[in-house]
Amino acid sequence: MAFGWIDAQAEQRRRAGLVRTLRPRPADSPLLDLASNDYLGLAHHPEVVEGAAAAARTWGGGSTGSRLVTGTTELHTELERELAAFCGFEAALVFSSGYAANLAAVTALAPHGSLVVSDAGNHASLIDGCRLARGTTQVVGHADPEAVGKALRTHAGPAVVVSDSVFSVDGDAAPLDALAAACREHGAGLVVDDAHGLGVLGDGGRGAPHAAGLAGADDVVATVTLSKSLGSQGGAVLGPARVIDHLVNAARTFIFDTGLAPAAAGAALAALRLLRREPQRAARARAVAGDLHTRLTAAGLDAVRPDAAVVSVRAPSPEEAVQWAADCRTAGLAVGCFRPPSVPDGISRLRLTARADLTEVQLDGAVRVIGETRP
Amino acid sequence: MAFGWIDAQAEQRRRAGLVRTLRPRPADSPLLDLASNDYLGLAHHPEVVEGAAAAARTWGGGSTGSRLVTGTTELHTELERELAAFCGFEAALVFSSGYAANLAAVTALAPHGSLVVSDAGNHASLIDGCRLARGTTQVVGHADPEAVGKALRTHAGPAVVVSDSVFSVDGDAAPLDALAAACREHGAGLVVDDAHGLGVLGDGGRGAPHAAGLAGADDVVATVTLSKSLGSQGGAVLGPARVIDHLVNAARTFIFDTGLAPAAAGAALAALRLLRREPQRAARARAVAGDLHTRLTAAGLDAVRPDAAVVSVRAPSPEEAVQWAADCRTAGLAVGCFRPPSVPDGISRLRLTARADLTEVQLDGAVRVIGETRP
Repeated sequence: MAFGWIDAQAEQRRRAGLVRTLRPRPADSPLLDLASNDYLGLAHHPEVVEGAAAAARTWGGGSTGSRLVTGTTELHTELERELAAFCGFEAALVFSSGYAANLAAVTALAPHGSLVVSDAGNHASLIDGCRLARGTTQVVGHADPEAVGKALRTHAGPAVVVSDSVFSVDGDAAPLDALAAACREHGAGLVVDDAHGLGVLGDGGRGAPHAAGLAGADDVVATVTLSKSLGSQGGAVLGPARVIDHLVNAARTFIFDTGLAPAAAGAALAALRLLRREPQRAARARAVAGDLHTRLTAAGLDAVRPDAAVVSVRAPSPEEAVQWAADCRTAGLAVGCFRPPSVPDGISRLRLTARADLTEVQLDGAVRVIGETRP
Repeated sequence: MAFGWIDAQAEQRRRAGLVRTLRPRPADSPLLDLASNDYLGLAHHPEVVEGAAAAARTWGGGSTGSRLVTGTTELHTELERELAAFCGFEAALVFSSGYAANLAAVTALAPHGSLVVSDAGNHASLIDGCRLARGTTQVVGHADPEAVGKALRTHAGPAVVVSDSVFSVDGDAAPLDALAAACREHGAGLVVDDAHGLGVLGDGGRGAPHAAGLAGADDVVATVTLSKSLGSQGGAVLGPARVIDHLVNAARTFIFDTGLAPAAAGAALAALRLLRREPQRAARARAVAGDLHTRLTAAGLDAVRPDAAVVSVRAPSPEEAVQWAADCRTAGLAVGCFRPPSVPDGISRLRLTARADLTEVQLDGAVRVIGETRP
């Protein structure tokens, strides 16, 4: 029977304790949220919500076409201009998701005959970008600029180094300075996925490339998402205008995708303006993360020191991680739970996100619950 | 210099007359729109716009996380349930774009050792899905069920046949009956991208698989977009519940992408309910397309008879196609212009979309402008 092989895979997953199930949340969920990527707590901010609603009213429910046909409104251009300016880049291009932005950046910048050097801990969307690119990919060890330099030395043509700025599993930061130095030594371009850096790292949340003094350089491209700190949906590629022009002409996930919905563009733009006006939100997210880590460590838990707003806590096994997260939920706390194949090293963990708007009382409660439910 | 090779490519594009430029549209554009994919004219319908706004108010500007963490709201589940029921499938899974839905369906249903048989005219997202899939892809001639059968005969393991239902370039329909027969003869699954069928084809717009009596079959999967007839953004995979469960567990563009923004889900759900209440909108879109084709042909233009709501008119060359579209625009008419690499056969064309809400007067004016500006 067609699709018959699916059942055998499902049975394997059941046996391994790796079945994933959707858990729809109600609008009035009583859970304390340490699971979402709403780092600045802006998804429900009245200005962001009104940004979405007003854009839908003015521009309609959808953008109605691909970006090169009818899917570019003046709202998209406004968002691109302000996003580029905020992060310190010459130009920006908005996509329907961060996933699509990453596929675009990697595929368009790694043509036939080129080399892509990719960190072993990179996000799935960068990995898929490498797999779709016409260039040859070499995966190097996690956060290892020496290995990057070594890989670049073996190649003569165009080359690009691809790395998350903040790795989503453990929340650790990439060594951007050293990566950029290795790139420059070999004339390679650097593509940084700043999904977890925008809004959290850098002056007022301008992101990891800005913090590293790399924003606006002619050999650096950043990708960001509008769905984390900016509380909306979508993604963007930031870089030199000539690179952005190239993407407009060459990136399949730009050319053949419907433009971002106006409501998402409007929400992201409102959040960006809020962040510009209230830059302390970024520092607060980092402070909450540091505080959370200190308290978890004090409680004897194996938490990784956060470089941004993601705090990872290791669990003994996938089954125990799932049970731990479930027990937290029962006690009123939503936490993320990462298991294979979402973790490159096979280690399951709870994944906590430090929202800028968490209070001391909420943090106390969260750490207490996590400690009491530990396996 | 890093990215130096980009300039040579840009120069090649300039010489070939293939430079693509974004043209932001204002909210109050005076142009008559025959370029968008807003087939039912719902993107600006008050109920759809209010669906977006109300969802943002209730659920926030974004879904805040991946679908398996915090990105599934009860609104997503409601949309999935109603979409599946409307199209006649057991279950549905919503994605942030149709592109992501296609990547998910093809990659998750074409494991290592399997065969994917793909129509040469398929959309870029299906092609990228084939390239990402672990299975082996065999591309067959456009709309050629015999070639599909021949390809399937050569393979022993799991196999899947992938086809657009309505091809976006020429607007022609796939021979779904014959494709399904070939699949069943060889125990293969059928994946139909109904992006241009939903809302236009089938009883009340239930789509091409429904019209072909294939909806709900245990060997058929459909993908749809929420960004065309439904006037919003996003995509979905429809199929047997076991296939949808498999996607939840295995599809990387589902697992590692942020969930669709609530506003987009709300707009699509409102449009779907409107369509269910006013099924004549689908027939009207088809009638307008037929009418448009008749008038263009009567004016001596080389238009392809439409099977859905896309009407393609051939142009002598890329340069003339661009000039033709520009002249239409100057005369107040927005039309699509497809050139290489967006056309598989190298033939440039104007691409017109027949919206259900176009009036006789608008159709008259459009055909007059297209005729007067012909190269």
